[in-house]
Amino acid sequence: MRDPASPTQASLVLENFLPYRLAVLAHKTSRALSAVYGERFGLSIPEWRVLANLGHAGPLYAGELAERSSMDKPKVTRALQRLETGGLVQRAVDAQDRRQVRLTLTRRGRGLFRDIAVLALEWEAQFLSPLSEAERKTLDRALTKLMQRGEDRPRSANARAARHAEAL
Amino acid sequence: MRDPASPTQASLVLENFLPYRLAVLAHKTSRALSAVYGERFGLSIPEWRVLANLGHAGPLYAGELAERSSMDKPKVTRALQRLETGGLVQRAVDAQDRRQVRLTLTRRGRGLFRDIAVLALEWEAQFLSPLSEAERKTLDRALTKLMQRGEDRPRSANARAARHAEAL
Repeated sequence: MRDPASPTQASLVLENFLPYRLAVLAHKTSRALSAVYGERFGLSIPEWRVLANLGHAGPLYAGELAERSSMDKPKVTRALQRLETGGLVQRAVDAQDRRQVRLTLTRRGRGLFRDIAVLALEWEAQFLSPLSEAERKTLDRALTKLMQRGEDRPRSANARAARHAEAL
Repeated sequence: MRDPASPTQASLVLENFLPYRLAVLAHKTSRALSAVYGERFGLSIPEWRVLANLGHAGPLYAGELAERSSMDKPKVTRALQRLETGGLVQRAVDAQDRRQVRLTLTRRGRGLFRDIAVLALEWEAQFLSPLSEAERKTLDRALTKLMQRGEDRPRSANARAARHAEAL
């Protein structure tokens, strides 16, 4: 991150720029974690994200799933199709509103989610091991603050940019 | 992040799981930043990433660009096409190896990169403002450590998962 004393300096060094750092680290982290479930269970990253979100917070509507999994709808749709074909996800018509379809894990899907969860938590503990306890706590607090900041910011300022914004 | 004292606990709460937190925050950050350049300059997120990487580290081969921008090749290719059509990016045949093509910004592309860089740095300073100086430093150090960790980990353990891994 830059020296805040020089806000007019216009040189953008990507390696120091927080959005770039976050994007690179999130991408690497997703990829490293995918080695854990990809090898053993044959899931892609989008498939794991859908499985994890349904396992953790399902049943969900497709739109909620896209929002929660930080992916665009076509990617979610493709992942859902593969998971449905594999017997891991099923659709349920909403009792209140029959035009709405909610997505949920099958019994087999829930079992797979639990199996991967164990490995994922082990992986996370290992991944965080270079950080001291104090660093972890500060990282946690900083991420929480920045996450809230993201939510505070008015999105409507730029509806067009929001539509453009793909799930990266 | 979880209580490290209970590593056998298999309940995966996504909101506490670092890869999920990073993915969500990176996504929100990209989207919030895109409001800055999207409204004013009409760029999408992938287009900005290509512009920024070429502006910062170009000329680059297409493969390097995909790696650096944490995006998959089709997304990079589409962004490049739009930027080339807009006169912001050009291709240059490598003098050493004429089969290789390197990508570089045009004069207009460099100007646009500089204009957006000023706004992006202002945006970053604002975005980080809820964090204390100490929190920023720790965040910075923690991200650096985790980023290095990503690089240390053997990728080859699972070539198949790596091929599956899309730019998320």
